Amino acid sequence: MITRLSNYFLKTLREDPADAEVASHKLLVRAGYIRRQAPGVFGWMPLGLRVKGKLETIIREEMIAAGAHEVHFPGLLPREPYEATGRWEEYGDALFRLQDRHGADYLLAPTHEEAFTLMVKDIVSSYKDLPLSLFQIQDKYRDEARPRAGLLRGREFTMKDAYSFDATDEGLAASYQAQRDAYERIFTRLGLEYVIVSADAGAMGGSRSEEFLLPTEIGEDTFVRSAGGYAANVEAYQVPAPEALPIAGQPAAEVFDSPNTPTIETLVAHANAVLPRADGREWNAADTLKNIVLAITSPAGEREVVVVGIPGDRDADLKRAEVAFAGFEVEPATAADFEKHPGLVRGYIGPVRGEEAVLGLEGTTGIRYLLDPRVVDGTAWITGANIDEKHVANLVVGRDFSADGVADLATVRDGDPAPDDSGPIETARGMEIGHVFQLGRKYAEALGLKVLDENGKLVTVTMGSYGIGVTRIMAILAELHHDDRGLIWPDAVAPFDVHLVATGKDAAIAEIAAELAETLDRAGVEVLFDDRPKVSPGVKFGDAELLGVPRVVVVGRDAAEGFAEVWDRRTGAKEKVALADVPALFGA
Amino acid sequence: MITRLSNYFLKTLREDPADAEVASHKLLVRAGYIRRQAPGVFGWMPLGLRVKGKLETIIREEMIAAGAHEVHFPGLLPREPYEATGRWEEYGDALFRLQDRHGADYLLAPTHEEAFTLMVKDIVSSYKDLPLSLFQIQDKYRDEARPRAGLLRGREFTMKDAYSFDATDEGLAASYQAQRDAYERIFTRLGLEYVIVSADAGAMGGSRSEEFLLPTEIGEDTFVRSAGGYAANVEAYQVPAPEALPIAGQPAAEVFDSPNTPTIETLVAHANAVLPRADGREWNAADTLKNIVLAITSPAGEREVVVVGIPGDRDADLKRAEVAFAGFEVEPATAADFEKHPGLVRGYIGPVRGEEAVLGLEGTTGIRYLLDPRVVDGTAWITGANIDEKHVANLVVGRDFSADGVADLATVRDGDPAPDDSGPIETARGMEIGHVFQLGRKYAEALGLKVLDENGKLVTVTMGSYGIGVTRIMAILAELHHDDRGLIWPDAVAPFDVHLVATGKDAAIAEIAAELAETLDRAGVEVLFDDRPKVSPGVKFGDAELLGVPRVVVVGRDAAEGFAEVWDRRTGAKEKVALADVPALFGA
Repeated sequence: MITRLSNYFLKTLREDPADAEVASHKLLVRAGYIRRQAPGVFGWMPLGLRVKGKLETIIREEMIAAGAHEVHFPGLLPREPYEATGRWEEYGDALFRLQDRHGADYLLAPTHEEAFTLMVKDIVSSYKDLPLSLFQIQDKYRDEARPRAGLLRGREFTMKDAYSFDATDEGLAASYQAQRDAYERIFTRLGLEYVIVSADAGAMGGSRSEEFLLPTEIGEDTFVRSAGGYAANVEAYQVPAPEALPIAGQPAAEVFDSPNTPTIETLVAHANAVLPRADGREWNAADTLKNIVLAITSPAGEREVVVVGIPGDRDADLKRAEVAFAGFEVEPATAADFEKHPGLVRGYIGPVRGEEAVLGLEGTTGIRYLLDPRVVDGTAWITGANIDEKHVANLVVGRDFSADGVADLATVRDGDPAPDDSGPIETARGMEIGHVFQLGRKYAEALGLKVLDENGKLVTVTMGSYGIGVTRIMAILAELHHDDRGLIWPDAVAPFDVHLVATGKDAAIAEIAAELAETLDRAGVEVLFDDRPKVSPGVKFGDAELLGVPRVVVVGRDAAEGFAEVWDRRTGAKEKVALADVPALFGA
Repeated sequence: MITRLSNYFLKTLREDPADAEVASHKLLVRAGYIRRQAPGVFGWMPLGLRVKGKLETIIREEMIAAGAHEVHFPGLLPREPYEATGRWEEYGDALFRLQDRHGADYLLAPTHEEAFTLMVKDIVSSYKDLPLSLFQIQDKYRDEARPRAGLLRGREFTMKDAYSFDATDEGLAASYQAQRDAYERIFTRLGLEYVIVSADAGAMGGSRSEEFLLPTEIGEDTFVRSAGGYAANVEAYQVPAPEALPIAGQPAAEVFDSPNTPTIETLVAHANAVLPRADGREWNAADTLKNIVLAITSPAGEREVVVVGIPGDRDADLKRAEVAFAGFEVEPATAADFEKHPGLVRGYIGPVRGEEAVLGLEGTTGIRYLLDPRVVDGTAWITGANIDEKHVANLVVGRDFSADGVADLATVRDGDPAPDDSGPIETARGMEIGHVFQLGRKYAEALGLKVLDENGKLVTVTMGSYGIGVTRIMAILAELHHDDRGLIWPDAVAPFDVHLVATGKDAAIAEIAAELAETLDRAGVEVLFDDRPKVSPGVKFGDAELLGVPRVVVVGRDAAEGFAEVWDRRTGAKEKVALADVPALFGA
């Protein structure tokens, strides 16, 4: 069926919407794809539904090819299962909560692990019913604090979420791989470049987890990769520990006065002035050990103050800290925390604890002390002495102090080593376009999903979770494919195959254009036909460029001589083509 | 693609779910179409999605054929527009309300008049942009008090809602007719018998309104129809007023003692005993005028006590009363109401008011008195005298008393006249399957949707609203099409064209069945193939009957000789058919 602009529910805007900050938001509103209903909540106009529908079809086809069965869950779900898995609380303000008329608690589901788990529990009883992969394409809800990026991060959004169910770890690995492969096919079909990075499990908890990131300067995620093929979310990067150094023969530790050295820079300058090294090398920031005081709070609400020693040329990365202390909330220690722990002498905190009594230092008794993985036995440091206005130099790990454990939360830099020995890493920016994730047995355990195994023994099922934000992908495609005149959709999701423009007031030209539209339509080409009789060519051309159908055919003055003009919006090329040859351009 | 039961997300149940009261609920759960998530909230399994998808396709095709454009609105909507139209309050407990993290009020939309109106306001500015019809197929929410009928009345349900926008009343009439025609086509395609009845507008307010009712004994709606073609919801039926009778020559009214006559029956018996008629006829209930005391409450909360006189052989129908007092809440007067109005002598209330002073009766001064349309001038009645233990006989309308107006709220009976003179009506039960409704300018007025007319003058747009409950229709189809063994879907929405069962342990038979499945599949026949190797024929047959694919092909013992058995679930016929002839049965 030909879609005629003279009778289509569409209005293009010349101005960007006031609340739009990103290109996709501006263009999708201006070109009449979506309209704002509330912050982060959009209504879909016919053009928008077409593109979204094509995206969903591609995703659905690849899910089915991967052996997943389509189901559909409600947006409105009861509290109890989310209570059982802890997510009712964990989600915090991002969860829309409500009550029904009887006062029962409900939520608008942000993802559906619980619902899928319970349905599978209801259906499946034996390992013979597994493996099983299910998916849905469904509208989800998250109460984002500042929903300002249009479809990139809405409060109501469409997601494909899939879940796999297996009796064994090997089964999970295979189901995971099938989904991972499907994701590769989906993004390839959409022409989306991607890097698969190891990802932090974040709030979800579990084992293997990978994100599909689109490398782009405007991405909100940082990832690292090596030339040798390593790639990880910056939160998931783990620095390999270097080999320990020999302790024997190292100079003895010595305490020195260090007034007015509030920063690493002032401390280094002071050390170079008062403590010249025997070998003449200057001290620098990497020779100092910076002691970061953090407060971590367990899910049960217990707050603990910990000190983490990291090389002084790095800072703590709070997002990486949240991974290092997975499951805990992490924040810098507050004044109140310091008051509770008078052993922490601000500006002069050191790694030596009272029980070790090196050099008579009292130390930070009773507080856990953790070390960056680089700070191995045998390394020597300038660091705080736990005494006001005093530092200590040549303090050697394994000789003068030791730690309670490791915490890898220092900032990551270009040139840091990949953990798999594949060379130095570089950091880059990316946008998440998909996430595959081995949940393991967390949800099955919490909700009692067990099956009988080959030996007739009940075993807990292990699960995977696989998500693609459909509406988010649509926004990302708009971010990637536009110019200053408008959108330029990839063929795979373009709302139409051709945008056919009839110009001028000549009835004969309109007739030729209409015939061409019919010919294309009969051949199965999806035609958007701008047949508006009283709209100027300039406005029609502007709309054609804004709307983003990748190929535009203009039937105008030259039509009488048998020619049309064909625009390629991607290359900008405009070509005079015989009318008779136009259908062949579209495979018709 | 062949769907194989050996690898399908399906489990059939032998027992009805405990919370299911209606056949569709029981069968859709037992046959593995849906699963309960919360009261009135369901998850959809693959079989259920298939049927729902086919229903949606039929509805979508007919909407597009009717010239409507598809859009999609969020389920989560802000309060303000619903406040502007009054529905935020009007919906009462049936509306799911919630707040976001900033404390802003939201709702889960029960219907989308407001959202459509605002989007059209955003897009449309001139009568030239009209007429316009939009539709969506979308999940809606209503917090039903007792959601116990499965998909018949869920709290989350899928609806097709369409809205038309016109500059003129004639335009609305045409848009309405186009939707009404589309509904006729949809229900015809679904094989659903329907009666189009005039309907009360109910809470929505507006002008023309019709319901598509499926006539069925188990329907929750009562409607009336005449042999001559009149049909109306029982709430919308309006009794035609008979002609007035001559007043001259009627006997004079007379008050008589009537102790212990609490009911119409006792009153009639007493009257026959103490007041024999001159012509010897007996008094009967139809000669008495029953005075109903109601309390009506305006949207602003003002409560008024009114009295309505109806023939004593009828009762008041509170649903019809709500239509008679449209916009007001109606309930029987309470003891408190009577206390406030001592003029109302319980058991002896009459139509004479103080100012008329017939026979010296004091009457019910200051209370509005309304009459059933049948109680016309010149009719004479036995009715209350407003004095304890006294009634009055031969009280003639238009001579002894008059009313403040008409209220048509008496019960409706078989044999009552159709208002259009098309003969006596009969009452019947039906189930609502669709609703078309001229909203008029209510929503456009409240939300400021205006366009420039031909003369450049701003005019308010007039709207229509057209709804079909998709999931409800699915339940209704299940109600209509099942037997004691299971579902029997109509072809138009059957999840598959054929349910192919391979029985026995013979590998050769399995092979023959698999080949048949391939042949059918290649010809475009949708095949559900029960290839489960270790399931007994009895269980397979039971599942085939329960699932409801209308035609079942059994490949078993006779396969070696080249025969299959073909079942027609509708007729129950089982026929031996040559394997080679099976594809032709499915047009393949």
